[in-house]
Amino acid sequence: MRAWEATLHAHAALSRALRHELEEHEDIPLSWYEVLLLLNRAPGQRLRMQELADSTLFTPSGVTRQIDGMVEAGLVERVRCQTDKRGFFAALTPAGKERLRAASPAHLRSIQRHFGSQLSDQEADTIAEAMSRITDAITGRCPGA
Amino acid sequence: MRAWEATLHAHAALSRALRHELEEHEDIPLSWYEVLLLLNRAPGQRLRMQELADSTLFTPSGVTRQIDGMVEAGLVERVRCQTDKRGFFAALTPAGKERLRAASPAHLRSIQRHFGSQLSDQEADTIAEAMSRITDAITGRCPGA
Repeated sequence: MRAWEATLHAHAALSRALRHELEEHEDIPLSWYEVLLLLNRAPGQRLRMQELADSTLFTPSGVTRQIDGMVEAGLVERVRCQTDKRGFFAALTPAGKERLRAASPAHLRSIQRHFGSQLSDQEADTIAEAMSRITDAITGRCPGA
Repeated sequence: MRAWEATLHAHAALSRALRHELEEHEDIPLSWYEVLLLLNRAPGQRLRMQELADSTLFTPSGVTRQIDGMVEAGLVERVRCQTDKRGFFAALTPAGKERLRAASPAHLRSIQRHFGSQLSDQEADTIAEAMSRITDAITGRCPGA
């Protein structure tokens, strides 16, 4: 319980610090940045709405609202799924990719300052392994797969 | 970066699992449960709106909406601040305390199943210490104070 509560508090404090610094310096909401990052890493730089909901803290309706705003800002476009005519992908636009590229250095510095610089290499390894194991157990993936 | 991303993913996966199980078995949103928990631990079982925003992922307007719903459900009441006539506290009601008491055992079992049971004692200690240090550095508190 102590480890879980410490993780919750650190996550909340870090999210607030990262959100503040990203909005202050790069004028982009942290939740938009995270979606751009997920899309940039995805095959074909696009993801289904459900995949985005599964990878973030958003509910499906929250993802839809969020993507609406990002489409309006030109950072994301909706692409109809070829195999499932009712389905849509959210796809990264060139403007979205550029926005991510511009905002990344400041964001990575924030993470290093508030998180990385507080950890020894051994602590960082322990956290990376333990947290990956927890995620794998919940999502049912085989560790290392 | 690996430790940070693993923490983000684990937090998202755990929050989804805990939210789902709490709503399924106890019919209460995770965000409500977390506010009840914070209020229950606070001196006088009440907190200012700003203190709630600082301890959760909510924005100030998000906290206000959330507390509105909890007041309507009878779990929380608004109490005017004696020293600052414009300020309000959110205070736990007896019904809120009872709801927290009823939901806690199932929630603690969920945390143990998805988080605690995945960690060795040493990993749990490392995570608790490292995450507390990160929170303290951001919030400016002296470690151990």
